[in-house]
Amino acid sequence: MAKKKLFSRPMIGVDLGATKIYTLLVDERGNALAESKMNACGEQGGDAVLKRIASSIDNVMTQSGAGKKDIGGVGLGVPSPVDLKTGTALFSPNLGWRNFPVKARLEKQLKMRVRVDNDVNLGTLGEFTLGAGRGTRNIAGFFVGTGIGGGVIVDGKIIHGKNNTGGELGHTIILADGPLCGCGNRGCLEATASRIAITRDLQAAMSNGIPTLLNNLLAHDTDRIKSSILKKAYKDGDELVRAILDRAAWHIGIAVANITNSIGPDIVVIGGGLFEALGQQLIPIVRRSAMLHFFGPAGKDMPIALAELGDAAVALGAAVNAAARIS
Amino acid sequence: MAKKKLFSRPMIGVDLGATKIYTLLVDERGNALAESKMNACGEQGGDAVLKRIASSIDNVMTQSGAGKKDIGGVGLGVPSPVDLKTGTALFSPNLGWRNFPVKARLEKQLKMRVRVDNDVNLGTLGEFTLGAGRGTRNIAGFFVGTGIGGGVIVDGKIIHGKNNTGGELGHTIILADGPLCGCGNRGCLEATASRIAITRDLQAAMSNGIPTLLNNLLAHDTDRIKSSILKKAYKDGDELVRAILDRAAWHIGIAVANITNSIGPDIVVIGGGLFEALGQQLIPIVRRSAMLHFFGPAGKDMPIALAELGDAAVALGAAVNAAARIS
Repeated sequence: MAKKKLFSRPMIGVDLGATKIYTLLVDERGNALAESKMNACGEQGGDAVLKRIASSIDNVMTQSGAGKKDIGGVGLGVPSPVDLKTGTALFSPNLGWRNFPVKARLEKQLKMRVRVDNDVNLGTLGEFTLGAGRGTRNIAGFFVGTGIGGGVIVDGKIIHGKNNTGGELGHTIILADGPLCGCGNRGCLEATASRIAITRDLQAAMSNGIPTLLNNLLAHDTDRIKSSILKKAYKDGDELVRAILDRAAWHIGIAVANITNSIGPDIVVIGGGLFEALGQQLIPIVRRSAMLHFFGPAGKDMPIALAELGDAAVALGAAVNAAARIS
Repeated sequence: MAKKKLFSRPMIGVDLGATKIYTLLVDERGNALAESKMNACGEQGGDAVLKRIASSIDNVMTQSGAGKKDIGGVGLGVPSPVDLKTGTALFSPNLGWRNFPVKARLEKQLKMRVRVDNDVNLGTLGEFTLGAGRGTRNIAGFFVGTGIGGGVIVDGKIIHGKNNTGGELGHTIILADGPLCGCGNRGCLEATASRIAITRDLQAAMSNGIPTLLNNLLAHDTDRIKSSILKKAYKDGDELVRAILDRAAWHIGIAVANITNSIGPDIVVIGGGLFEALGQQLIPIVRRSAMLHFFGPAGKDMPIALAELGDAAVALGAAVNAAARIS
């Protein structure tokens, strides 16, 4: 299927994660022409990170033979709420940033205009424009990995909310007074269904002697249970892993119903590492749970779909976001 | 404070409830010039209800000396999700309506154009335009009575959602696998914090012998515990009533945080019979609970305010809604 033209010129999108920088140069239809991956080296401080971002942008321009005047704009996703007026990253525990003026500093560095937003908002925008949400106007996205990020788009626009925390669907409460979350609250979806929560529950069960294939697969290193390990154990029929992951998917279904009953999107998209690994297994459970929690016809004909863009969602969304304002 | 002009001509707003019809004729600034209250007589069927609505409209026009040509439009709120394209009320258990073409029938009856929406959406629009939400662009409303209704407005527009069930904040789940709700799901806010839920919990406690002033106040009729009775018992220091109402307010605070973390409104407004009776007592608990459940700065400087328009909210919102499209 020929994609429609999105931009008047090629765009650059950058996904700054806690540990890595992923940069794409895309053509007018959102096809990747060049990519660059490097470590973020966050421990060297914010300005060092920005230098590395600039270098990754040089990289993709060199690869594609484009000069600055050929580029429509640069978009950047950061793992932090962002003050959109100033392009300031408000707080990113992983990068050690607090009120870091990332837009102003990067523009100075690049001598190009930059548009910054929260990474998960941009991942949602990527799926909305180029992925599973193509052709819709309203979408909610859940990205389930170490934590659970979210994004909400209403009538084609990212919902940022009064204090730039809109779309934090991983921090909606589905279990009043439930388990403690990393955010300090209790009963958040992230506290029951993220990989951190799943790891906590697995470790507790294992230390209580519930048998599991994980004992062999992990070789005593139970602190980092990767999605690939979970996938292997789940597919091999491990009862403990199935019980805990299915419960997580059930809870995600409740959160899917909640945003649906609240604002009724056209589609809900679910991605992130856990669903890249086990989406085929877990999406049916999410759907079954959501079905039981929709209010009346709220979920009628509303797809609950796996994300399609994988690791590229944020960088693609960043490119789209930059084009919306800059080009 | 002089109110600003909202309409080019006077408007009529009608609140059709399960048992009553409340109709207002308002001037260009939203001030009520005439009102009419009558029973809905829903048991006589939909067309009989519409005749009574027409009669209530005649009433307010006669009172104010206005003719049809003086009126900018008629708005109607109904206790049902509404298909906005056709003005059809999809299902209203209380009125016994299913797919009832209320807009077409009423327009034929009145020979005037009518705009129909869900009553709680319009109550939220009323508060947004003329009540506690004046001057904002984004609002969430909770109306706590027998059940819990909700409404969401983003960027000045009511969110209806894909299947016309947007804003059903009473049917978001705050307690996974919790108590059964009248809607058939489990753990909805309505199942833990509505007057139905409160009555259920009070009856259970009373039948277990927990002492309460309600034993005297109710004279053995525990089936209908009105907000006025709850208010008296709460204010007289009844420990059981306080425990159960405070828990309900705590749960409402969680739902307030959920919609805030999801879309970050400018204000959350709480109304309905229970909060008209006990708002001063319960709003501080809602605020305290929300404070503990906001994600980071999500709730910063966001008022959680008591509704201001009381019983007139829906009729006023209906008038505003009609003007937005018709005048």
